[in-house]
Amino acid sequence: MDSLRLTCTRCSKKMSIDSLQGRCDCGGTLFVEYDLERIRRSFSKDTIYGRSASLWRYHEILPLREQGARVSLGEGWTPLIRMRALENKLPLRELWLKREEQNPTGSFKARGFSVAVSLLNERGYKKLAVPSNGNAASSLAAYAAYAGMEAFVFLPKDTPTMIVQECMLYGAQTYLVDGFIHDASAIITDGMEEQGWFHVGTLREPGRVEGKKTMGLEVAEQLNWDMPDVIVYPTGGGSGIIGMWKAFKELKELGFIHGELPRLISVQEAGCQPLVDGMNKDIESAEEEEGMHKVTAVTASPTGMRVPNPPDEGLILSILLETGGTAVAVSREDISTAQHVLGSQGISSSPEGAATWAALSQLLERGFLERTDRVVLFNTSHAMKYLPGRIDRKIPVVKDYRDWLLQNASHRG
Amino acid sequence: MDSLRLTCTRCSKKMSIDSLQGRCDCGGTLFVEYDLERIRRSFSKDTIYGRSASLWRYHEILPLREQGARVSLGEGWTPLIRMRALENKLPLRELWLKREEQNPTGSFKARGFSVAVSLLNERGYKKLAVPSNGNAASSLAAYAAYAGMEAFVFLPKDTPTMIVQECMLYGAQTYLVDGFIHDASAIITDGMEEQGWFHVGTLREPGRVEGKKTMGLEVAEQLNWDMPDVIVYPTGGGSGIIGMWKAFKELKELGFIHGELPRLISVQEAGCQPLVDGMNKDIESAEEEEGMHKVTAVTASPTGMRVPNPPDEGLILSILLETGGTAVAVSREDISTAQHVLGSQGISSSPEGAATWAALSQLLERGFLERTDRVVLFNTSHAMKYLPGRIDRKIPVVKDYRDWLLQNASHRG
Repeated sequence: MDSLRLTCTRCSKKMSIDSLQGRCDCGGTLFVEYDLERIRRSFSKDTIYGRSASLWRYHEILPLREQGARVSLGEGWTPLIRMRALENKLPLRELWLKREEQNPTGSFKARGFSVAVSLLNERGYKKLAVPSNGNAASSLAAYAAYAGMEAFVFLPKDTPTMIVQECMLYGAQTYLVDGFIHDASAIITDGMEEQGWFHVGTLREPGRVEGKKTMGLEVAEQLNWDMPDVIVYPTGGGSGIIGMWKAFKELKELGFIHGELPRLISVQEAGCQPLVDGMNKDIESAEEEEGMHKVTAVTASPTGMRVPNPPDEGLILSILLETGGTAVAVSREDISTAQHVLGSQGISSSPEGAATWAALSQLLERGFLERTDRVVLFNTSHAMKYLPGRIDRKIPVVKDYRDWLLQNASHRG
Repeated sequence: MDSLRLTCTRCSKKMSIDSLQGRCDCGGTLFVEYDLERIRRSFSKDTIYGRSASLWRYHEILPLREQGARVSLGEGWTPLIRMRALENKLPLRELWLKREEQNPTGSFKARGFSVAVSLLNERGYKKLAVPSNGNAASSLAAYAAYAGMEAFVFLPKDTPTMIVQECMLYGAQTYLVDGFIHDASAIITDGMEEQGWFHVGTLREPGRVEGKKTMGLEVAEQLNWDMPDVIVYPTGGGSGIIGMWKAFKELKELGFIHGELPRLISVQEAGCQPLVDGMNKDIESAEEEEGMHKVTAVTASPTGMRVPNPPDEGLILSILLETGGTAVAVSREDISTAQHVLGSQGISSSPEGAATWAALSQLLERGFLERTDRVVLFNTSHAMKYLPGRIDRKIPVVKDYRDWLLQNASHRG
């Protein structure tokens, strides 16, 4: 038996790892399945210790066979830092922030694309296309560029300007779409045969989830294999939640962690909250209704959380329920306030990252969070990708100290 | 004897580490001096192996006494990646890029401020001020915020908008200055007594150089203690060059590295090139002339390299000469081209980082670089800090695949 194969999360059908493109015939998501029984014989916590500060430190449970095909720009092993001032403010027992903005391309998306582009590199693909709210596009663009492949990226036309500029800087063929991310995806699906595009959209191939999985592996290792109680994660397409859940399952099978899995909590912006809505229904109806959300009602900001039709909503909801987590929606105003709160602690947080902080008070009120919990937030990308590029308030221009004193006199009372 | 003290690089006078503020009476720069004889007894390459992926892995040769005073946001141990496509293009034996943009606050400045703010935290300082071309200000702002201190930042009025926004996001008291970085510094010098500011400007306290030193330590360790031939570094105030040189000296004394030091090469933008000009004079006259550059002739862009009056030009020049390096100036146009070249390899490079690539062909021509050399470039910060916030060329907005086909017909021939 090949030690690597694909397995459908819905119907359990097994497939060769070489059929990378697409989803299962039944509509389910395809996971990479490892021979963990075999792997655990030679793979231990000690094996990893001292390895390179990149997600590839876990290469035994990543799907690349030829390590020479690896496309790595220095992704993963991002800092997990303690937010003491904020944990005292709530209070919580422990509050940690995973600084995903320190990845290449300034976002967590680098993880998925390092693994996905490596897999495609191993198989000789050369033209990759992705629909994206921004960060996935800029990451694909960078990894494809480094690997000498072509990238085609399709972004909603209200995607933040900075991210569009990044895609162009990395030389991607960049297109804006009059619609949402699923409209962008439809363009690729319709054109992929004719254009020879490999569709690297969320859950369309197994590599991106494997890359995202490493966020879970890292949180576990960075907390010395003593799992947190709760992980709060901004969720759009859901591959992060899915990936981390897969990580924890595999770590249990490998005997690296024990006990309950962390409660996984998805945060969305009000105005595009299919997961929050989905938690109020049963999962089967969510699966039936996939693709049926009234997209005309989408009023959320253009961020990575704005995914009206997640490709596998049923899988995400079942993970949230299984771990005792939930999904919450926060307002645009609360996100903006949260960006300033995190900023006041020295953290450059994207709206998505800030949303995780914004969710905490609601989660405490609703009883999904206890004051005795150890909590991990994910800051998925840099604030600067979303800053307006102009300064709204007037900043004093001073010539010398005397001038500074004069201009600040009014403030000093 | 206290195992930590300050020593003047010019007159060799020794001082207590507790007199953090200022420069030597003789005008020289104050370095932290370690008792390396004692340290080497218990500090080896093996000691470091497996330690945390942060610059604090080298805490034995960093000046903090109370590790509890450490102010760390996850800085240092940034990826050093091989640029194979570019090394083949020149060709060079090996070309490496140190991805300093993956630090907190998106730049190399995080290193200096993690160490400097920690030292100041250890001594109870609460009001810190810095003159800066941008990235130092945003880093001070973030570290001061995390440590619960106040930051006052003074930036030339043409500083890129994104960086000004970052400073404000981190809650710094942010002021624009009608002048250059030395004019900004004069404001702080004039006001520091009255306002109770600690002046954290370049070479005004010993912590920032110690933080920058870790770039040199990391390059050495990441290349398995087998030193590169050349390091190309964008230089403004010079604390990076000075810090790396100090790193290599200390590593030699510790017995971690042997042989020649890498040739250190400073890159500046034409139109503000005191180091390039200085290389054509002798060092003594450079020292005498400090502060005398005709700032009216400054035409370079507002980047971190634009420092008309480096605080210790003589020290930088003597280091460049001692290591067999040099200083080169590159044009604004060459920098812009280089940003696109690095972008086409998946790297988001600031103008300063791009300048190092721009310098290579000139260095090859002038014989300061051989095709057999192993070369390390430093990408000091993210491209996005400098992107204009608007897109100059028209990007197609498409509705569906048919629309995409039509709009691209002209390109497809």
